Amino acid sequence: MPPYPATCRAAVVRTFGAPIVIEEVPIPGEIEPGAILARIEMCSICGTDVHLWQGSLSTKVELPVILGHEMVGRIVAMGSGTARDSVGQPLRAGDRITWTHTSCGSCFFCTVAQEPTLCANARRYMYERMDRPPYLLGGFAEYGYVLPDAGRIRVPDDLPNELASLSSCALRSVMNAFDALGAISPAETVVIQGAGPLGLLATAVAKVSGARRVVTIGAPDARLAIASVFGADETISIDRTSPEERVDAVRVLTAGRGADIVMEFTGHPAAFNEGLDLIRRGGRYVVVGQLGAGTTTFRPALIVSKQLRILGSLSGRAKAYWKALDFLSAHRKAVPFERMISTRYSLGDVNIAMERMKRYEEIKPVIALDAPMEAP
Amino acid sequence: MPPYPATCRAAVVRTFGAPIVIEEVPIPGEIEPGAILARIEMCSICGTDVHLWQGSLSTKVELPVILGHEMVGRIVAMGSGTARDSVGQPLRAGDRITWTHTSCGSCFFCTVAQEPTLCANARRYMYERMDRPPYLLGGFAEYGYVLPDAGRIRVPDDLPNELASLSSCALRSVMNAFDALGAISPAETVVIQGAGPLGLLATAVAKVSGARRVVTIGAPDARLAIASVFGADETISIDRTSPEERVDAVRVLTAGRGADIVMEFTGHPAAFNEGLDLIRRGGRYVVVGQLGAGTTTFRPALIVSKQLRILGSLSGRAKAYWKALDFLSAHRKAVPFERMISTRYSLGDVNIAMERMKRYEEIKPVIALDAPMEAP
Amino acid sequence: MPPYPATCRAAVVRTFGAPIVIEEVPIPGEIEPGAILARIEMCSICGTDVHLWQGSLSTKVELPVILGHEMVGRIVAMGSGTARDSVGQPLRAGDRITWTHTSCGSCFFCTVAQEPTLCANARRYMYERMDRPPYLLGGFAEYGYVLPDAGRIRVPDDLPNELASLSSCALRSVMNAFDALGAISPAETVVIQGAGPLGLLATAVAKVSGARRVVTIGAPDARLAIASVFGADETISIDRTSPEERVDAVRVLTAGRGADIVMEFTGHPAAFNEGLDLIRRGGRYVVVGQLGAGTTTFRPALIVSKQLRILGSLSGRAKAYWKALDFLSAHRKAVPFERMISTRYSLGDVNIAMERMKRYEEIKPVIALDAPMEAP
Amino acid sequence: MPPYPATCRAAVVRTFGAPIVIEEVPIPGEIEPGAILARIEMCSICGTDVHLWQGSLSTKVELPVILGHEMVGRIVAMGSGTARDSVGQPLRAGDRITWTHTSCGSCFFCTVAQEPTLCANARRYMYERMDRPPYLLGGFAEYGYVLPDAGRIRVPDDLPNELASLSSCALRSVMNAFDALGAISPAETVVIQGAGPLGLLATAVAKVSGARRVVTIGAPDARLAIASVFGADETISIDRTSPEERVDAVRVLTAGRGADIVMEFTGHPAAFNEGLDLIRRGGRYVVVGQLGAGTTTFRPALIVSKQLRILGSLSGRAKAYWKALDFLSAHRKAVPFERMISTRYSLGDVNIAMERMKRYEEIKPVIALDAPMEAP
Repeated sequence: MPPYPATCRAAVVRTFGAPIVIEEVPIPGEIEPGAILARIEMCSICGTDVHLWQGSLSTKVELPVILGHEMVGRIVAMGSGTARDSVGQPLRAGDRITWTHTSCGSCFFCTVAQEPTLCANARRYMYERMDRPPYLLGGFAEYGYVLPDAGRIRVPDDLPNELASLSSCALRSVMNAFDALGAISPAETVVIQGAGPLGLLATAVAKVSGARRVVTIGAPDARLAIASVFGADETISIDRTSPEERVDAVRVLTAGRGADIVMEFTGHPAAFNEGLDLIRRGGRYVVVGQLGAGTTTFRPALIVSKQLRILGSLSGRAKAYWKALDFLSAHRKAVPFERMISTRYSLGDVNIAMERMKRYEEIKPVIALDAPMEAP
Repeated sequence: MPPYPATCRAAVVRTFGAPIVIEEVPIPGEIEPGAILARIEMCSICGTDVHLWQGSLSTKVELPVILGHEMVGRIVAMGSGTARDSVGQPLRAGDRITWTHTSCGSCFFCTVAQEPTLCANARRYMYERMDRPPYLLGGFAEYGYVLPDAGRIRVPDDLPNELASLSSCALRSVMNAFDALGAISPAETVVIQGAGPLGLLATAVAKVSGARRVVTIGAPDARLAIASVFGADETISIDRTSPEERVDAVRVLTAGRGADIVMEFTGHPAAFNEGLDLIRRGGRYVVVGQLGAGTTTFRPALIVSKQLRILGSLSGRAKAYWKALDFLSAHRKAVPFERMISTRYSLGDVNIAMERMKRYEEIKPVIALDAPMEAP
Repeated sequence: MPPYPATCRAAVVRTFGAPIVIEEVPIPGEIEPGAILARIEMCSICGTDVHLWQGSLSTKVELPVILGHEMVGRIVAMGSGTARDSVGQPLRAGDRITWTHTSCGSCFFCTVAQEPTLCANARRYMYERMDRPPYLLGGFAEYGYVLPDAGRIRVPDDLPNELASLSSCALRSVMNAFDALGAISPAETVVIQGAGPLGLLATAVAKVSGARRVVTIGAPDARLAIASVFGADETISIDRTSPEERVDAVRVLTAGRGADIVMEFTGHPAAFNEGLDLIRRGGRYVVVGQLGAGTTTFRPALIVSKQLRILGSLSGRAKAYWKALDFLSAHRKAVPFERMISTRYSLGDVNIAMERMKRYEEIKPVIALDAPMEAP
Repeated sequence: MPPYPATCRAAVVRTFGAPIVIEEVPIPGEIEPGAILARIEMCSICGTDVHLWQGSLSTKVELPVILGHEMVGRIVAMGSGTARDSVGQPLRAGDRITWTHTSCGSCFFCTVAQEPTLCANARRYMYERMDRPPYLLGGFAEYGYVLPDAGRIRVPDDLPNELASLSSCALRSVMNAFDALGAISPAETVVIQGAGPLGLLATAVAKVSGARRVVTIGAPDARLAIASVFGADETISIDRTSPEERVDAVRVLTAGRGADIVMEFTGHPAAFNEGLDLIRRGGRYVVVGQLGAGTTTFRPALIVSKQLRILGSLSGRAKAYWKALDFLSAHRKAVPFERMISTRYSLGDVNIAMERMKRYEEIKPVIALDAPMEAP
């Protein structure tokens, strides 16, 4: 008999937009080679969770699914061949890990392009039906099943669950974006578009990476205040400025040239146009937040006349997860990352949490599953 | 008394859209340090010449100007300090040269960004008033004045004027675009959007650079026939296909993935959208032809979900001119570049030439000025 | 009962330097998940085979081993999960494949550095004891066992075994070296040090990649003749020149500057010094052939005063194998690669073949195993 | 009559190794176009000054010369066309500037390679005879002549002369080295070889750039103490450790792998070998300090088996000077750069200063020329 219960509770979406249901879901009795079963301790909530729940993602999703994809868990059972994590650190039952969407290792994108996030055969947590094995592929659940082809990274012991869960979608996406960007020269000004979780974390990474000046654009003021604490030299509220005023403000800071680097984390198509105006000739624009079906109208000649480099960055591979955890561990004394964690919910309060997320009343809330549980 | 006449003939635009006037224009009596006076032998005609003439450029131009900017000339008089060209080759009266727009060498873009084409103080041939010294800053003229801050490159002796003039705007722009692109792996498929002069030359450069497969998209068939001779493995006529069919055709050639690299040389904003569809996930898109005020509506999420790198390329620095001339010299036996030269006009026929350009009846015509002239 | 014999013949090294023994070796009765059993059709011979046999490798090798590591085979039996090759192409029994050393996918080098050839847990064909399962980890054998963690690439149908085997060590190493190099600009001169199999293949790749001028340095003349046919614009015999003369010769070809790019494929430590002299200031030096314990004395100030980039390249990942096969398929009509294949030996003649290799009487000989065999 | 004296005092080397002579040297009566005359306020002393004085440079130097090349001066007279510095900032008499060796802008290295420090026609301060115009091409003098082809950068007003002079050789070389290196990922460990002025400044730049861990290796302890203040997470004394112990120590800090990045600033050929051992497989090695005629014996196979990238970095272009000044201005509150300035000498004490430099009793001393002077 396996050392874990036969079922566990999970937050299931059965109808788009309808209340999320807490259900008992089977736990696989056997863990296949390469797979791991983890007791989820915490799962932070992401805007994408809201979009999936509301049925507004451009990707087609087949229901029912277990919501949540930014999770940290403690290893309960291990399939064969899982003695090391994706960077070679030893793994044992009881260790905490975060884990990635899968990549097959056997397609053009994994092998030739070496971009596992573009894998032709990826399976993604929260996007997989929960009414068939291995059931537990979402983060708002007491247990999670780590697929064999998924990367998994050991969480440093000094890192609280709140920060570890942050790393597993928000910060790994930011780390991937900085990989796409390449070097920041010490003289360069970086503009961050967006003061949501990714924008705030990117503010911290840009500052730690030695940018001459980090300017974070967003709202509301409470978030901009966090941006300042995280390292923004300047913040600009979109509530009190027009796009033209923001472009002017950045020009004033950069001898009239515009930002050397702009990084987009807003999700609003119009931000793309503003980004093109914020950037100097010859500058680099990293686009991360654009994920929806929205369109924008722009003049492609700007790309040529300003000789821009526009770099898309999607999600993040295992490498980005590892770097995210390492970054949190290295800089958590200097940067109060926990200030991003806005509220702590129990699994039973998932609908309250999601409604508040939907109304933009949260920054980065978490579902805490780490309270003691009775044995089955 | 200088060894050249006091005036020479030039084709002057005095009113946008009105017939171009052949006038006698002063030749500077003194050549300042760093400057060169050249007897222009040939100037090829570019689409931008038509746009300037018609007054449809987004850049504001003050009239009157001498039209033409793709010229090759023979050195007649040299200011002090001009004994070497921009790559160190010796220069003497009687040598042929091409020359670049100016870059000041003393601005952020020249010194820090090392992108002289983005120079904050650039002066550009054909964009400068001809009613004040040094008058001769356009190519449709018997003499041309090379400004002190302009790059100048010696033309290899074996290169006819037709090819040398090609190098000085069309091919140097293409060379700059390939610099922006970086390495082409031998397994990569390159799609060239556009079968105008730049698209055709880019077809040749992509093929010579070892691309696995070069696909040139454009029209009419006569140009696509040249593309094939220049190295296109496949050509696709835009006259006989829809954008969707072109995307499908490229997919079929690339195991369903799309092109590794797309390079845009069309000038049509809609081509930008098509380029985003032609390219594979993780691919690179070099944008060159977009120069006008036109807009397009697109979904920025494509940049993220396909994790694209979009690279603008503007004009070309002295390095690109040198590489262009060297390329023509190295490959002219294998690639019949002269097939692009559609007609040879005299200076007096400039209006005929321009009207035909306007009606898209030419590929790359030239104004030939190299007929013998009487002494003053 | 499996559809293959219980044993097969293989060339085994039991004592360094002693004659290689043809033995009957067990074929595993079961093929584990991810593994493949292939009927080896051909295995080309590499200088490293000689070094291992002679016991002169700097890496420690435990005997007995089956010699040979450049093999192509036809799939006989497949473990579960092997329906696609490493780039996503479908695999079926009867298909030909080449395969790579293993990489674990779970170490810093695989995941963070994304350099599977540096994998901390790699297992390499020909370096593994053959007296324990799965026995068949060398290429001079009738059957070969593809380990689960090994990349495997389908061989294009149009490619003869001679070329396919070439790809699996020689050309994939060359492809990896060109990846390390990055872009070759059309104006650049590439010097190839070495006219052995790698040097000859690198000559072809450099030429196909559009180098302005390829200069191959080596000996004897018969190899330089092949270099010329493969695309060398110039060849320089080391039998008839001093290092100084070679440096001078390259200077003459490059306006006095030296080569833009030098690529080393010789294995002689002294070639490193010569490479530093052949290269121009600001040039790139890719070092591939240096594998032994030999040392050289040089002046490190050359790296600084010439501001060089020196790029080591080791072996090649699955991506390089795929590119190698694709390259052979794409260019075999233009480049007579088969001219490198110096002799075709049967397995029984392995000692004759190895002796001749040792005496440098071969370029790239092969062991042909593709003759029809009786059923067990 | 020009607004400056006819002569000024300067420290002249007339015989290698003999005492330096303070002489009256002519000040050019006319400042040619592009040139600037500056009243030197401070010149820091560099190890190269000692080597030149002693006649131990590998470069041949023709005497007499004025010693010193790390100077900051205040503009006294300006040739025509000098109204802006090399990055476009306005210049006026009375402004402070630093300036670079010359680059011609008209050679392969300036134009094609875009590496002005490799210019084929460079003239270098302190290396030019002082017995012919414009005489004042060394820093240990009351006036300095900025050549027309030399870059010049305005010094931020808030920067004391001590720091500005630091920027003009030591820190610009470090900035150039970081350009050669490219991006530092937040998870990477950087080892700095050398605790001289360059090593100390590189320690600060690496830390500011976000390196996970900076390890500075050198001696004596007083310098290592400065390294710690500048940002070194660890320092290792070469006085108390063997090379093997240092390699082990770095391994312990890096999960057994070795440093991701090593940067060499020692000048000792043996440090090159140690660097190769300190670095992890796949790592990057930036070599800066190797300038002399010394040799070392090493195994080139290390470059291949560890698949290293070795990047030479020489001096620094105008861009590096600008970045150096900007860096000092941005970080001088966080990093006490002035702790490197070991002693302040008057021009008359130049021989005392040089003797102490020769005996390694200084870190970075300066010659202060900014005391008030009588009018001529």
